[in-house]
Amino acid sequence: MTFPVVGMVGGGQLARMTHEAGIPLGIRFKLLSDTPQDSAAQVVNEVVIGDYRDLDTLREFARGCDVITFDHEHVPTEHLKALEADGIPVRPGPDALVHAQDKGVMRARLDAIGVPCPRHRIVRDPADVAAFAQEGDGFPVVLKTVRGGYDGKGVWVVDSVEEAAEPFRAGVPVLAEEKVDFVRELAANVVRSPHGQAVAYPVVESQQVKGVCDTVIAPAPGLDEDLALHAEEMALSIAKELGVVGHLAVELFQTRDGRVLVNELAMRPHNSGHWTMDGAITSQFANHVRAVLDLPLGDPRPRAKWTVMANVLGGDYPDMYSAYLHCMARDPQLKIHMYGKDVKPGRKVGHVNTYGDDLDDVLERARHAAGYLRGTITE
Amino acid sequence: MTFPVVGMVGGGQLARMTHEAGIPLGIRFKLLSDTPQDSAAQVVNEVVIGDYRDLDTLREFARGCDVITFDHEHVPTEHLKALEADGIPVRPGPDALVHAQDKGVMRARLDAIGVPCPRHRIVRDPADVAAFAQEGDGFPVVLKTVRGGYDGKGVWVVDSVEEAAEPFRAGVPVLAEEKVDFVRELAANVVRSPHGQAVAYPVVESQQVKGVCDTVIAPAPGLDEDLALHAEEMALSIAKELGVVGHLAVELFQTRDGRVLVNELAMRPHNSGHWTMDGAITSQFANHVRAVLDLPLGDPRPRAKWTVMANVLGGDYPDMYSAYLHCMARDPQLKIHMYGKDVKPGRKVGHVNTYGDDLDDVLERARHAAGYLRGTITE
Repeated sequence: MTFPVVGMVGGGQLARMTHEAGIPLGIRFKLLSDTPQDSAAQVVNEVVIGDYRDLDTLREFARGCDVITFDHEHVPTEHLKALEADGIPVRPGPDALVHAQDKGVMRARLDAIGVPCPRHRIVRDPADVAAFAQEGDGFPVVLKTVRGGYDGKGVWVVDSVEEAAEPFRAGVPVLAEEKVDFVRELAANVVRSPHGQAVAYPVVESQQVKGVCDTVIAPAPGLDEDLALHAEEMALSIAKELGVVGHLAVELFQTRDGRVLVNELAMRPHNSGHWTMDGAITSQFANHVRAVLDLPLGDPRPRAKWTVMANVLGGDYPDMYSAYLHCMARDPQLKIHMYGKDVKPGRKVGHVNTYGDDLDDVLERARHAAGYLRGTITE
Repeated sequence: MTFPVVGMVGGGQLARMTHEAGIPLGIRFKLLSDTPQDSAAQVVNEVVIGDYRDLDTLREFARGCDVITFDHEHVPTEHLKALEADGIPVRPGPDALVHAQDKGVMRARLDAIGVPCPRHRIVRDPADVAAFAQEGDGFPVVLKTVRGGYDGKGVWVVDSVEEAAEPFRAGVPVLAEEKVDFVRELAANVVRSPHGQAVAYPVVESQQVKGVCDTVIAPAPGLDEDLALHAEEMALSIAKELGVVGHLAVELFQTRDGRVLVNELAMRPHNSGHWTMDGAITSQFANHVRAVLDLPLGDPRPRAKWTVMANVLGGDYPDMYSAYLHCMARDPQLKIHMYGKDVKPGRKVGHVNTYGDDLDDVLERARHAAGYLRGTITE
């Protein structure tokens, strides 16, 4: 058989779940992981332990792979270009991926292709932040380092010029954005293949707690059909214009005046798409693998009227196994996804999916399980 | 975290799919495989290469496992008893498993607990076969070696005393059975945990071609509700009486006069349960893992009105990858499960699942994909 080898850089839970999705596809899956204890490294057969920032390590890893893809966006662009020059397909490629690595590049490109974003500008210093505030409705202003942020890290909401000093200390360029008056956050997830086939998942509502995704509801309840279609088309258009291959998550603000503005882009399977593992005909992970191999994509439509994903965060108690038994006994329909990670307070260690016809029931079951596993619910 | 380690003996596709189901459960999965090329050995992180017939190998493998379970029924009973004496939970245990290893023991036990079987008797030689035939409706008679058969191997349908010589050549005891006048074959699949919780999947129709499972339809079309319930209760009762832990497949004949008779038992995930991977709320593999760990079992109910599984057998052309692309493009809802095995004519190398509301459509899609992959359909 000539079934191909997919190499994935990064040993986190996204790689773990991509491997899981790759098993039925019959592909061989190779992993480059920081340590043998990483989430994906525990479950993959072919694991190379090494540093993705080292080009020689990447080159050695890429040997024998038919395509390289990613669990995260941190591989340096020049290394990806070197792999491409070696003849290894890198998907998404460096010219696309830079838009998920650098928020300044992303904003400039979205402006150029006419995609609506929050008002924004690269700022040089606190005085420049004050000027940016004055050009709009004043403070608060959102400041973001253009590179290296995730899950609320590298993001500040500042109320004054005094508070604006902190983000500049790292010496990384800083992007200022208006604080959008949004009613909720949405995500439009699409998958695109090298030959240009693309599929769109239904637009979901993403609820954040302290900058970390907490709950995702698929599809977004009560979302106007035209606005949903507009968001899906926007995500498909971004994928095409930026040359994305694989899964693209477009995180959106739904504004009080009925528009959607792009918040962030991620070019890999994404937390807002975890519901697809149990809630869609084809999961985001399976479609990501199919896309990077240029296989025909699978049907992205939902299997249930409502699917809810709730993240399981670490709590104060390190052993989740007894809580786990309780949750399984309480709800035999619950779909639990554990990542094999040590429990640390606030760390994402798993997620649960629930689905059904009654949104209140589906939400309650997901939230109860996630809260019980974390230890914030005890009955 | 104190998530447990499941050790599985045997590197075939059942272990591969059990590992896949174990990943979201967060358990560690250890494999004892004959070779590194075996289906499961390609995708599992912790693989021990060794011979399951060697007790020292089994003991070394079992060290650090919280439970031992099986991809096949071939581990010698005395080795399993030795592991149990070492304090390793073996699930299913040797006293249960012997009923899936030895058809003579199985028939005697089912007789004792009043489960209806085809008329049967252990026979000593061809003359004894002739006597057995005369006691009933004459030839044909089915002869089976009591140990070692699978997928039609070790089974003969003989029309005369002359033909009855062959099965005795291996020197293994031979079981004679009446050739049942059945209208179709069914399977009743159940899962049972050590503390006695049990779940029953809907009874399915299993269509065989040349002694090998070809297509499974879930649920069995047009099956009388009372008969379905009777079959489920029979399977649950067998699981309880025999002390089965894990998945039990009860293969059944549905007779022309409206009864069900037990054909075979398998105490592991089974081909007749592959449809559950995409068609049930909880798959047989996930429930097998939950059972052997004594975790609460998951909901076995179907997610679609009809689910069809079709086995992909090897054909004359060794490279399935281009056929694979065609099938994905033709049917974006198709669920393909490839086992990573080299293609040999007639060898099970994968299966496909389809589901939906219209049985004719669901059947056509599954059969087309399986036939196209094998090469018997070319358009």
